[in-house]
Amino acid sequence: MRSYLGVGVSTGTVPVNHDTNAKVFDRRIKITELVLRCVILGLGVLAAVLVGTDSQVKEFFSIQKTAKFTDMKALVFLVVANGLAAGFSLLQGLHCIICILRGRALLSKQLAWAIFSGDQVMAYVTVAAVAAAGQSGMLAKVGQAELQWMELCNMYGKFCNQVGEGMATAFVVSLSMVVLSCISAFSLFRLYGGHKMKNVNC
Amino acid sequence: MRSYLGVGVSTGTVPVNHDTNAKVFDRRIKITELVLRCVILGLGVLAAVLVGTDSQVKEFFSIQKTAKFTDMKALVFLVVANGLAAGFSLLQGLHCIICILRGRALLSKQLAWAIFSGDQVMAYVTVAAVAAAGQSGMLAKVGQAELQWMELCNMYGKFCNQVGEGMATAFVVSLSMVVLSCISAFSLFRLYGGHKMKNVNC
Repeated sequence: MRSYLGVGVSTGTVPVNHDTNAKVFDRRIKITELVLRCVILGLGVLAAVLVGTDSQVKEFFSIQKTAKFTDMKALVFLVVANGLAAGFSLLQGLHCIICILRGRALLSKQLAWAIFSGDQVMAYVTVAAVAAAGQSGMLAKVGQAELQWMELCNMYGKFCNQVGEGMATAFVVSLSMVVLSCISAFSLFRLYGGHKMKNVNC
Repeated sequence: MRSYLGVGVSTGTVPVNHDTNAKVFDRRIKITELVLRCVILGLGVLAAVLVGTDSQVKEFFSIQKTAKFTDMKALVFLVVANGLAAGFSLLQGLHCIICILRGRALLSKQLAWAIFSGDQVMAYVTVAAVAAAGQSGMLAKVGQAELQWMELCNMYGKFCNQVGEGMATAFVVSLSMVVLSCISAFSLFRLYGGHKMKNVNC
């Protein structure tokens, strides 16, 4: 008998109920997805709040200057991306909970494609936001002497630390979105299954 | 009769040979994959060469200054990411051609997972590289007055234009990698198929 995940692997020794295995596996996938959506919701809001509420006032020769996240477009992108990821996960999490409470999926083919597309877009958007903010953060931390862009974190230490915490949180959100996008790809594409290994594309 | 892509959709009117449909569909997927890998190979090398060979010398009060891609870490990341994507696509393209010539797949479950993982990683890496380089490019183009980071493209116009062309090329590479990662997810996850819609996770 073939185990659920053992595609092309035949054990032939232990009698296992295939349907029970599949149900247990489905339940694990569902719970993993729900946990990831909760993580993204919580940490997405946390990252957006950490970066979005950050500011520091410094006085230079009696002139007050305030550092805030809107000074860097990449940080605005980070706040928006994490807010969107959190909002999308809230909607999907509610959908998931209704599914679990009703004991059956509310899924049509169109909805499966919509969830897959949404997860893919959010995964790439959150990764891009972390990359852009990381680049800006590095410039602010160490500067770029060749371009006469000076480091700023020696002046705005508290501001930079809080942005760093927000970026670390956003990094975890983007990793969770990447895993989630793989799960929703799995949930969608196995609908097109039933192929043996020999028929698979290169 | 159910069409290959019409999961859960029953037409019941036109008699179609399911196996023939599936073979035609498989062939189209295979050709799309091969075309995308060729695009990524060609444009990945082009993007890396455009950015990696770019330089411009300017004279300021008898002091010569040279702008080069290594002045910005994000451009180094862009060159490396596109070089890796091109190299990976070359290997996968060769594998694909051998498959087509032999008329059968050389795929084990482990290899399918390796290809899927490689495509996923390359898709996220190329998107992250474009995002980081885009952020640096915007800073070089318009500066960031609040942070005293001045624009550079008014001084190094030719250098900036060539980097812009490289970044546009890298953007096409990253989009192709995203589509390709979806195709390899499809190729892998349909191996775990055979589920009806009612069994699908939320």
